[in-house]
Amino acid sequence: MDKNHAMIIFQPSGLRGEVPLGISIMEASRQLGVDIEALCGDKQVCGKCKVRIEQGVFQRFGIESKPSHAGPWQVSEEKYIAPEEREKGYRLGCATRIKGDLLVFVPESSRAGKQVVSKAAGTIHITPDPAVKSYYIELKESTFDKPLGHFEQVCEALETQFALSSLTIDVHALQCLGHALTKGKWCITVTVWMDREIIRIRPGKATTSLGLAIDIGTTTIAAYLCDLTTMDVLTTVSGINPQCKYGEDVLSRISYHMAHAHGLDRMHDDIINTVNGLIRDAVNAVCQAKESADSPSEQLPLDSTALPQSPGVEDIEDITICGNTTMHHILLKLNPENLGAIPFAPTINHSVDIKARDLGIKINPGASIFLLPNVAGFVGGDTMGVLLARQLHTSHEIELIVDIGTNGELILGNKDTLLCSSCATGPALEGAQIEFGMRAAPGAIERVSIDPDTWEVDYKVVGQKPWKSYSKPQEMHTKGICGSGILDAVARLYMAGIIRKGGAFTKKEQKSPRLRKHPETGMPEFVLAWANETSIGKDIVITQKDVRQVQLAKAAIYTGSKIMMRKMNIDRVDKVKIAGAFGSHIDCSLALVLGMFPDCKIDEIEPVGNAAGDGCRMTLLNRSLRQEADMLVKKMQYVELTLEEGFPHHLMEATQIPHMVDAFPHLHGVVNPDILNQKK
Amino acid sequence: MDKNHAMIIFQPSGLRGEVPLGISIMEASRQLGVDIEALCGDKQVCGKCKVRIEQGVFQRFGIESKPSHAGPWQVSEEKYIAPEEREKGYRLGCATRIKGDLLVFVPESSRAGKQVVSKAAGTIHITPDPAVKSYYIELKESTFDKPLGHFEQVCEALETQFALSSLTIDVHALQCLGHALTKGKWCITVTVWMDREIIRIRPGKATTSLGLAIDIGTTTIAAYLCDLTTMDVLTTVSGINPQCKYGEDVLSRISYHMAHAHGLDRMHDDIINTVNGLIRDAVNAVCQAKESADSPSEQLPLDSTALPQSPGVEDIEDITICGNTTMHHILLKLNPENLGAIPFAPTINHSVDIKARDLGIKINPGASIFLLPNVAGFVGGDTMGVLLARQLHTSHEIELIVDIGTNGELILGNKDTLLCSSCATGPALEGAQIEFGMRAAPGAIERVSIDPDTWEVDYKVVGQKPWKSYSKPQEMHTKGICGSGILDAVARLYMAGIIRKGGAFTKKEQKSPRLRKHPETGMPEFVLAWANETSIGKDIVITQKDVRQVQLAKAAIYTGSKIMMRKMNIDRVDKVKIAGAFGSHIDCSLALVLGMFPDCKIDEIEPVGNAAGDGCRMTLLNRSLRQEADMLVKKMQYVELTLEEGFPHHLMEATQIPHMVDAFPHLHGVVNPDILNQKK
Repeated sequence: MDKNHAMIIFQPSGLRGEVPLGISIMEASRQLGVDIEALCGDKQVCGKCKVRIEQGVFQRFGIESKPSHAGPWQVSEEKYIAPEEREKGYRLGCATRIKGDLLVFVPESSRAGKQVVSKAAGTIHITPDPAVKSYYIELKESTFDKPLGHFEQVCEALETQFALSSLTIDVHALQCLGHALTKGKWCITVTVWMDREIIRIRPGKATTSLGLAIDIGTTTIAAYLCDLTTMDVLTTVSGINPQCKYGEDVLSRISYHMAHAHGLDRMHDDIINTVNGLIRDAVNAVCQAKESADSPSEQLPLDSTALPQSPGVEDIEDITICGNTTMHHILLKLNPENLGAIPFAPTINHSVDIKARDLGIKINPGASIFLLPNVAGFVGGDTMGVLLARQLHTSHEIELIVDIGTNGELILGNKDTLLCSSCATGPALEGAQIEFGMRAAPGAIERVSIDPDTWEVDYKVVGQKPWKSYSKPQEMHTKGICGSGILDAVARLYMAGIIRKGGAFTKKEQKSPRLRKHPETGMPEFVLAWANETSIGKDIVITQKDVRQVQLAKAAIYTGSKIMMRKMNIDRVDKVKIAGAFGSHIDCSLALVLGMFPDCKIDEIEPVGNAAGDGCRMTLLNRSLRQEADMLVKKMQYVELTLEEGFPHHLMEATQIPHMVDAFPHLHGVVNPDILNQKK
Repeated sequence: MDKNHAMIIFQPSGLRGEVPLGISIMEASRQLGVDIEALCGDKQVCGKCKVRIEQGVFQRFGIESKPSHAGPWQVSEEKYIAPEEREKGYRLGCATRIKGDLLVFVPESSRAGKQVVSKAAGTIHITPDPAVKSYYIELKESTFDKPLGHFEQVCEALETQFALSSLTIDVHALQCLGHALTKGKWCITVTVWMDREIIRIRPGKATTSLGLAIDIGTTTIAAYLCDLTTMDVLTTVSGINPQCKYGEDVLSRISYHMAHAHGLDRMHDDIINTVNGLIRDAVNAVCQAKESADSPSEQLPLDSTALPQSPGVEDIEDITICGNTTMHHILLKLNPENLGAIPFAPTINHSVDIKARDLGIKINPGASIFLLPNVAGFVGGDTMGVLLARQLHTSHEIELIVDIGTNGELILGNKDTLLCSSCATGPALEGAQIEFGMRAAPGAIERVSIDPDTWEVDYKVVGQKPWKSYSKPQEMHTKGICGSGILDAVARLYMAGIIRKGGAFTKKEQKSPRLRKHPETGMPEFVLAWANETSIGKDIVITQKDVRQVQLAKAAIYTGSKIMMRKMNIDRVDKVKIAGAFGSHIDCSLALVLGMFPDCKIDEIEPVGNAAGDGCRMTLLNRSLRQEADMLVKKMQYVELTLEEGFPHHLMEATQIPHMVDAFPHLHGVVNPDILNQKK
């Protein structure tokens, strides 16, 4: 082996390979395709990437692994690795440099599991008017009397029969023209983009025309494959944003770019490859469904009966994409640096039309991609998608939309006024920076119930049977808590009187050994699951710090909402809509219990699913919404919350549950009055 | 070695390599980069690719070469290879399949020499208005008060200061925006294409802006690198169209495509690679000139003093291309099949704008290429270039323009009427299908003079001293005759009375042994150069068949002119312009002596150089000519000569010198009256 390289073997996956000396174990894990949690983006501040260096001669692999093959111990590791763990060889993957051959064990708690992505397509109502439309025309064979070029003949027919004029043509379509005329005996199907450019030419009468709406989230990606003739969703596919390995939130991605020479290229390539993979998955799913449909004995898993034949990726003629501004920039390989620094200006607000081939996205070679416009550095095309899906700009009632993803975005307004802002919820609601936090992957506690009298805990685990039938012992052992579980847990702790209005654990009566003090730090904590119910061999607890994280997150949303309401000069909202996959899993009343947004009728609080994805799909099916989006960017007023008067004070007040001073009349009957009326 | 391959060594070049068994020696020569003449495109009808199979064991190369390693003798070879040559191992390269290892000798007469390309840029008068223009703007750093995206700030500045609105931006330019703002401290130079799309962004004040006009001929390619700020030609580069190895004329190229599965791809790739090579050559030439200019001791070979720094290919921001319709189609990878079949309809008439990157042409990544429109299947963008350069559509006088390249195109008209046609001159005027014909490469006889009294011959050879000082013995031995030499020779033979009006060699007095009968065929021929003056060891002669070829070529041009004049209802033209590189080398009065076009004042016959290239350059420097070209395509009336009444009869009459019946009053005083007034 090259003396500048070392052999690294990861267990239990067995993935191995040579890597350059000097890189970190995390970096090596990425090169070798090993998934290790990287919530903080290698900043040594989350402690999630704990691994164990095994010691000994491993003849099977032909290496000797020893502590001296790992770089020196870092002060930052002390916070996350106890002395006895250190003795056993534990290190932080991101803090440990490779000096020689190593066998690295990745404990289950550090493994990045495959997230359960739930971004189903919602029902949308839309007038069909896609950007690509196909026209069947019959031409007459060229003669000396009519010495027009073939393209000119096509234009003449489209102008006479369909009133399309001044068309241009993509070179790929032009390259198909001669062959299509021969094969189709002068009858062809012409696909036109935006009444402007011919992008595809097929012989004879062709009808298959597909489009894809893609919602690129910081953590998850969802893609909706649609039939552009029927407007139906043929299939939904989703996956994890592969950039997660560089860090969980947008700021870690920006940092990764700034700290690595080819960081942007790498993140860009990752997302393009993933999008191409999702495209293949979607088309394969439809092909399989089509085959099943064609064999009458089987039931139809998907609505693809209308398709005349199994489609290919070249039948995808249009794509619309929404994502936050950072995802947008990385996708287009735009330097995201400015998004991370005041005043967070994006490189471009306006929507972007770009040929798919210019991004390396493999669909029809003449097809374009439409990216929804960015409102601001932290309010991107995904928020625009939410707005389009909710059509708030046509509403008489005042609505607050809270889109909780890895970041939180807020829209407030009606047909007259539109405000938006972004609030730093922190990653707590995604399960990060929580002691036993994890993503919504199998094994994560997603719902929690606490008996106010006994403090006994019931919970539901992702991948487990439905909520109502849960019972212990669980079929699947848990290994952590995801966002909705944390939100549930804190609300239930509050409702049971275990934590007080200010967030501190109660010092009064102890109804259960679940509320205890940490043996070393002496800090109070509450046991959600005992070690024997888990797959990690440890009690899963909610710590005081975890509660604080949730308080900060919900306070950020509340404060943002309140400041925007002040700007609009209103003291109540008619409706609250919770968008985002996280929003679909939470109990809306518990979110109000926590005071995540201003008081509102509980009936008027509604999860709206992946509204960003729905809005993105609407721009796929109706082109006029694309201009509308660019118009709305100008109409929308972005509120930079941190610059607003009294922001820190409002934030402080909002950290209490549900709030230090603001009233929540609609919680009467939901929360025990003694608890609701307590002083801090 | 693989038993499916053989080792082929070409001498004298020494180029060698393994090739698959079964391919022809010509095919092998292309794979190994050996230049062998291929005038007919492997159709076994020109006999130019004669090679000699060497016999013996060649230890140096580790092979045995023997006649049985070459495929069976073909009937088609008999016409070109005499029995005694056959005994020596001579074969036609295109007719001989490879069955085993071979050492192949390529005689000098079969070598495709590097052609002398003379396509100097003419002087043009044009109002500067290029398609790309650069604007320097100073922005204010983003603030929260003005939360516009960077692109929106750029648009605002361009609209306020330069009245440019509704701009889009190429993704490559967008990718540079963030960095340029940082590096330029918010001062940037923005390059805009057609007042429509931002294609380039540079930090600070940048001025270098280059454009390239490319004339892609069937045989030669010329490229003019221009400074788009001063409109000057910085340098001219040229080369041979690499597709020549597939055949000399457009029909051979079309046949090559139809006979080979990847023929179009191969020809397309060849031309793209050559264009990229010319681009590098042009930029390197300017860089070298710039360096010389910067060291004051040396003289300026090129006008590049104005450039602030040595440019790179990324400074080329615009390209315009003209070529005949077949070259246009191959460049865009459009199926050229229809161009070879009635009614010869092109895939597209209209001009094409295409991103350079979509063709794989390596200039600035945001730059576009403009291709001049095609008038018809055999009248392409090159003819449009000629029209634009001559501005015939604004002329009061009636002008005939004859563009003689590998094919002949004619334009006739004035501001009111514009006719055009294409005439099958055959390859004779390019030196093909002539016994000792060759391209205008070093060693080719390009000018001929014959003493009417002694029939002694003087001639000038390409690469030799200027005409007026030629004298024998020549410094350079000749090896053939190129187009202008053949034209000269036939005109001089006629003027000396050696051939008669009908083209036949005289049977009267024999003033010199130069006029003789071929020892075997008994056909008369005239010796231009004796064997000892040549490098091929043979007398170079003009045969009766050669004279016929020239007669057919000139008759085609004359007939086309006459039919178009009839359509315009005129019996004389005010001016005749001869365009094309060939036109620059010929003696205009001798062309009239042959009757190449209708009678005209000799003073009004003028060579206009590479007018196609000049017109192409004009569209580079003035964008409005691009719309004008598309407008002129509609105005121009294409005349398909072969469909015109009396065409064969007119052609027959025109084969006589100067013509069977039509008068040439302007030849009085040029040609001896006895000769001019002879009956056939």
